[in-house]
Amino acid sequence: MSAAAEPGTSSRHVVEIDPTWAVGGKPHGGYLLREAVALALDADHPHPMAVSAHYVSSPDAGSATVDVERVRTGRRVASSRVRLSQDGAARMEVLVSAGTWTDAEPFWTGPYGPPAMPPVEDCPRLPPRSPTGTVVGYFAHVDARLDPASAQWAEGKPQGVAEVRGWMRRDDELPSSPLDLLVFCDAMPPVTFDLGVLGWVPTLELTVHVRGLPAPGWLRVVQRARMLRDGWLDEECEVWDSTDRMVAQARQLAGYRVS
Amino acid sequence: MSAAAEPGTSSRHVVEIDPTWAVGGKPHGGYLLREAVALALDADHPHPMAVSAHYVSSPDAGSATVDVERVRTGRRVASSRVRLSQDGAARMEVLVSAGTWTDAEPFWTGPYGPPAMPPVEDCPRLPPRSPTGTVVGYFAHVDARLDPASAQWAEGKPQGVAEVRGWMRRDDELPSSPLDLLVFCDAMPPVTFDLGVLGWVPTLELTVHVRGLPAPGWLRVVQRARMLRDGWLDEECEVWDSTDRMVAQARQLAGYRVS
Repeated sequence: MSAAAEPGTSSRHVVEIDPTWAVGGKPHGGYLLREAVALALDADHPHPMAVSAHYVSSPDAGSATVDVERVRTGRRVASSRVRLSQDGAARMEVLVSAGTWTDAEPFWTGPYGPPAMPPVEDCPRLPPRSPTGTVVGYFAHVDARLDPASAQWAEGKPQGVAEVRGWMRRDDELPSSPLDLLVFCDAMPPVTFDLGVLGWVPTLELTVHVRGLPAPGWLRVVQRARMLRDGWLDEECEVWDSTDRMVAQARQLAGYRVS
Repeated sequence: MSAAAEPGTSSRHVVEIDPTWAVGGKPHGGYLLREAVALALDADHPHPMAVSAHYVSSPDAGSATVDVERVRTGRRVASSRVRLSQDGAARMEVLVSAGTWTDAEPFWTGPYGPPAMPPVEDCPRLPPRSPTGTVVGYFAHVDARLDPASAQWAEGKPQGVAEVRGWMRRDDELPSSPLDLLVFCDAMPPVTFDLGVLGWVPTLELTVHVRGLPAPGWLRVVQRARMLRDGWLDEECEVWDSTDRMVAQARQLAGYRVS
């Protein structure tokens, strides 16, 4: 991690998009986001605070360019504009506000706690190959265990609730960093499966607010939708740590298609 | 509104930031957003879909520059990068995904409806000058009527709930456009008032997802917080139209200070 950049500083980086993270041949959006946002942090602003990604067109695995422009370097917040390009075309645009999170007690929390779910040993791990044969490569990197009650669509019994819950950690069992939360906020299976709407749900926009340093241990992740309309749905994601604190909130606008 | 821009097209606009929208001398964030995003729309992509704003440093009323770069022009979605500058420094960075919304029935909605509140005639209008003398200029442009039950902090009786509800429309009574929703998603008084935390709550990041064309008539707006931690809170906003459809969802990360 480099020293704090001066405003107006631009840097260009060549990154290798790892093919083992791909879903159906396309790189995972949360993985792309983590790799790009990491380049906008510095020693004085080591954590993502608010990250907004617009997915312009999906890149392929292999080489890509990330351009980082530092817009402002403040005491508490550093603001950057980040673009991931491939073949000369922008593929993902990101705005990053970075700063420092602690593990302090919240000053105030609302009446909502972490989602209730069975112990991790009663939740089966999602495999990196779906029953229909689709390769979901990131499930080799993200150890995700779904609450079976929220995954009845996998047995052909969608419940019409559009909520998916489960446990997550890194497959390598390293502690989850604030950057890892960007991956986890885009790692749940589409909640549309629970509505009997199958098929791919490409993300148009994803904003993640990191809310604190995650404590060691398993994270609990819940994703929900509120409405499907005009071909677009919201997917709301919360991540809770082992001390029952919410450490990330995210929402994405994604496309669906009713066949 | 101009014809669809080619990718890579950049345009520079001089805008006048209207002093009558200011809050305590600083321009209203939702107003700035509406003015900037309008410049990223075109005839084939007339509505904001997902808009992500990072507030870098507050501008003053008066002249400002808006640079719009069209990143991609697709059939359904046009993606743009927008910067509002003043005195040579970036003040607000925005990513805009634009497209077309309809007034079609949703395909699916969750079990949550619009917030319950008394009829508009039982909700007092928020004045453009607060009881403590602060000028909240945008309340001359936005006709906002708060549910008194969610505004007991105004009587010195914060309830500790961190939810504010009310009715909104344009003061000129013109129908609300999708662009107006960007204003309404940042127009509620800070929910921190209900926690006894007074003082200014500056927005760091605000993302708005427009979800459909608003029907004519009053809109209902509800804003809530989930957690205050490390000096930052979330404010979640929903806008519902007169046909009980949710037409916008927003969340911001904003600063608070406990004195």
